[in-house]
Amino acid sequence: MSGDRDRLKRAAALYALEEIEEGMVVGLGTGSTARFLIEGLGARVAQGLKIRAIPTSKATALLARRCGIPLAGFEEERRIDLTIDGADEVERRSLDLIKGRGGALLREKIVAAASARLVIVVDDGKLVDRLGERTPVPVEVAEFGWQATALALERLGSVARLRRCDGGDPYVTDGGNLILDCDFGAIKDPAALEREIALTVGAFESGLFVGRASAVVSASEEGIEVLERDPRRRR
Amino acid sequence: MSGDRDRLKRAAALYALEEIEEGMVVGLGTGSTARFLIEGLGARVAQGLKIRAIPTSKATALLARRCGIPLAGFEEERRIDLTIDGADEVERRSLDLIKGRGGALLREKIVAAASARLVIVVDDGKLVDRLGERTPVPVEVAEFGWQATALALERLGSVARLRRCDGGDPYVTDGGNLILDCDFGAIKDPAALEREIALTVGAFESGLFVGRASAVVSASEEGIEVLERDPRRRR
Repeated sequence: MSGDRDRLKRAAALYALEEIEEGMVVGLGTGSTARFLIEGLGARVAQGLKIRAIPTSKATALLARRCGIPLAGFEEERRIDLTIDGADEVERRSLDLIKGRGGALLREKIVAAASARLVIVVDDGKLVDRLGERTPVPVEVAEFGWQATALALERLGSVARLRRCDGGDPYVTDGGNLILDCDFGAIKDPAALEREIALTVGAFESGLFVGRASAVVSASEEGIEVLERDPRRRR
Repeated sequence: MSGDRDRLKRAAALYALEEIEEGMVVGLGTGSTARFLIEGLGARVAQGLKIRAIPTSKATALLARRCGIPLAGFEEERRIDLTIDGADEVERRSLDLIKGRGGALLREKIVAAASARLVIVVDDGKLVDRLGERTPVPVEVAEFGWQATALALERLGSVARLRRCDGGDPYVTDGGNLILDCDFGAIKDPAALEREIALTVGAFESGLFVGRASAVVSASEEGIEVLERDPRRRR
């Protein structure tokens, strides 16, 4: 099952890689899909493709370096041509996303916000009719007063649970913050919820990505499906 | 001049301290005014007052401990009865604030948001007709991609400058983040600006405190003036 899904993810990642052109600044996502992406990109770089990549996590940076991909930072590049990343849920109708199971949602959102184009790669099991059906919304929060922030997020209608490592210690992000996994159930208005979370004191960023994906590449047993966002839908 | 201002701040702090009652959970601000507050509170605790305090910075925690004030954290207390803090600018008409010159704006805002009542202590030099007239708005931002976040904040109409220590290194907050001092000039609609900054990816919290102050105690050569917020004005 996991092997099947990996095969689908790899197929979608390789398809998305075709969008990368000589000279681009490329944002690289984090997680299981990103792994296939980075390995595939590394192979193209080895064949002579010249690009520079901005990684969304320390793990991605490490893997990209191993694959021989030249890295850049925001000190040199503030504008990214194309970012390719995974997602935990994709709403089929809107291409709105829930991201952050890999813990890198803050950096992923900063990179997405700076990108001219964001392409999301998934297996078709991630497509849903309504965001939140299966996945809680991860919210990166300040360690200081996280208990009060959790209360405020519960007042928005969620059950908020502190993410922990296997050993029981709180999970700490690359930025030194904590993650609250907030179960809202099926979300009626993702844009409004993304705003309300952003306005919550102590909450830095949520895993809701509304109006950010330009396209979604989804792989199933039947093949690759590409969903392009309706350009008339704006954030 | 600085001695005069210190005398005024101390007078205002001692006046505000009168609001603290037996058994309260008290939020303690950060900065030069907070120092007078903590020393005064320590004296009352030494006389037998029983309270617990939640500090808004490591510096305040250290000073409070030295003054014998029992400290608490959000793990025990999620609701604070009263917070007393300073401010860099107070808009006379609305009691909206700019805070954060001391670098503790994130924790100060988290504590303020959890407080039933927020009393601000200033010398009258801090009262202005329009926020932003003299002081830039500090914004706590993720270290990752701060250059892109600065661009986004400039698109909101500011000149954004990275705060640095005397030696030239970037100033790092207690939470491990950076501060961009964003000069917007006189701010027409602080509530709208506070929202727009909160919605900026990579920006965690701004030093705009809109609709949060319950009262402002201002000391001048003429004496103490107390401005209470019109309870009909809500955030």
